[in-house]
Amino acid sequence: MPVGTLANVKTLTPDQLKATGAQMVLSNTYHLHLQPGEAIVKAGGGLHRFMGWDGPMLTDSGGFQVFSLSEMRTITEEGVTFKSPRNGDVIEMTPERSIAIQNDLGADVIMAFDECPPYPATRSAVELATARTYRWLKRCIVAHQRSDQALFGIVQGGTYLDLRAQAAADLRELDLPGYAIGGVSVGEPPELIEQIVKATTPQLPEDKPRYLMGVGTYREMAQAIASGIDLFDCVIPTRLGRHGAALVRGERWNLKNACFQHDHTPLDATCDCYTCTHFTRAYLRHLIKAQELLAYTLLSIHNITELVRFTTAIRQAILDDRFAQDFAHWLTPADASRSES
Amino acid sequence: MPVGTLANVKTLTPDQLKATGAQMVLSNTYHLHLQPGEAIVKAGGGLHRFMGWDGPMLTDSGGFQVFSLSEMRTITEEGVTFKSPRNGDVIEMTPERSIAIQNDLGADVIMAFDECPPYPATRSAVELATARTYRWLKRCIVAHQRSDQALFGIVQGGTYLDLRAQAAADLRELDLPGYAIGGVSVGEPPELIEQIVKATTPQLPEDKPRYLMGVGTYREMAQAIASGIDLFDCVIPTRLGRHGAALVRGERWNLKNACFQHDHTPLDATCDCYTCTHFTRAYLRHLIKAQELLAYTLLSIHNITELVRFTTAIRQAILDDRFAQDFAHWLTPADASRSES
Repeated sequence: MPVGTLANVKTLTPDQLKATGAQMVLSNTYHLHLQPGEAIVKAGGGLHRFMGWDGPMLTDSGGFQVFSLSEMRTITEEGVTFKSPRNGDVIEMTPERSIAIQNDLGADVIMAFDECPPYPATRSAVELATARTYRWLKRCIVAHQRSDQALFGIVQGGTYLDLRAQAAADLRELDLPGYAIGGVSVGEPPELIEQIVKATTPQLPEDKPRYLMGVGTYREMAQAIASGIDLFDCVIPTRLGRHGAALVRGERWNLKNACFQHDHTPLDATCDCYTCTHFTRAYLRHLIKAQELLAYTLLSIHNITELVRFTTAIRQAILDDRFAQDFAHWLTPADASRSES
Repeated sequence: MPVGTLANVKTLTPDQLKATGAQMVLSNTYHLHLQPGEAIVKAGGGLHRFMGWDGPMLTDSGGFQVFSLSEMRTITEEGVTFKSPRNGDVIEMTPERSIAIQNDLGADVIMAFDECPPYPATRSAVELATARTYRWLKRCIVAHQRSDQALFGIVQGGTYLDLRAQAAADLRELDLPGYAIGGVSVGEPPELIEQIVKATTPQLPEDKPRYLMGVGTYREMAQAIASGIDLFDCVIPTRLGRHGAALVRGERWNLKNACFQHDHTPLDATCDCYTCTHFTRAYLRHLIKAQELLAYTLLSIHNITELVRFTTAIRQAILDDRFAQDFAHWLTPADASRSES
């Protein structure tokens, strides 16, 4: 899922986004609550209609953002109180509030409000957060009002695999329509992410969607899919685009590099995206160097297309029983001598 | 003509631009010479192919920009020497150089290199500049190498109508494929622009394209068309878009205004552009307030569509002999009590 934080995937129209092959979009409850506020989105017909995206959509609960972006936060059993970074207002976010906001936003999949511990964190801190996340999940289930929205639970547990296992077991009992692994990609080394995903995913039901939150490099996705993950969200393709970088057949290219100045070939001659079929590397480099916003649009189009193609190819390889063989390069641990893509 | 300064109309793909109904695009010789340089554009197959625009295209000569944007410039009979604002390089621009660059860029219409006096300027300064512009034009004609590019001459003369008349008479003698009125909209009051256009346009051949440079409000265009002008270029629709303003049926709206916060209607329900058929005022306001770049794309799409529709409606009204009647509102002098659109 490309990330549409503030009810848009940055620099892309819904038509451009659809043409990338992306099927589902994520939006952020935390950001949309702060602006424009869920009342406006609801009055505008819900998030799909408001932002003009008629495909599947997921909202996160705001948990991750409350813990990672807010200052002056206070955590109690009831919920979290924090100061709005936008206008300084004191805001209280609780499981009930998060679900009410997500009910108003109206995405197809909504997420339970969780406590996401930082990395590193002591075992006792993570134990507390994981247990609280479970109690909050049960309050979310009670608060959830719309049968047309699927509520997913989130497995926390930090880097402690036994806490992850316990959380997964607790969640399974609740028979939810989908399950997520949260609290990864919060600063821990790649091999730890891999370890957590490898150990935790098989403990979640195979017949339900399993969603790894906030992850999206080639390698992370391939390895997570090998463990059974079905769904990802990540800002990487669009954020890289806004930094002048392109994902090209497994590599990350900085298009500001002088080697592209006179390169009048497509970014990727094998790619059928709008950018690759209409423009050259020299043109993209020119736009980036000139700080023309169109560069970000064109690179985001390509980067999303590239990652959608990557996961689509994995899906086909699984169906053809060629996954381990064809994607062996990505299923080995990251080589520190290579740039991480 | 929407303005595509640096080989792109800011925030728009060529497909989005084409969908607005815009037929012709302007690009800037001065800017493209500084970056990426005409050699790269030429090696990339010329400006049309480089930027992916297969419709008609015009490049200005760089004259206006050399005089309005450069520091440390020295003007001699040979040309202008200035310091590149990009890297401090000393650059010499002459009529021959401007034409050579425009030959390399490869637009369908290219402009003569002219000296554009500021406003206000003394009569003797404008006399000198106008006479030099004429001598430079003759050097441009000699230097011009490509028969597939039409070279337009530019009438200067500041606010001195007799100097404008003399310049127009001199240019007519040269039997050029098209004629432009330059050196307007450089700071003079609207009524002076109107006076210059009204007096000068009829002195240029009716059977050749007549182009008023750098102009593009509703009123300026309507009045100039009434005098016989066929072609305009202006950054207004895209620049307004990037400032969160929309052109709606003759008015200029600031979409940041609180009145749009809960307004879930299209920007203009009678407009068939992508923006008006997919999004609401409340959504556009949200994007602008959140400084989402997509806002600039969506507003630029609408604003260009709106001005193309305006001039298309004028064209039809002329054919139907209803222009003076239907556009009477725009053919009267600007009312200082109204916001200028």
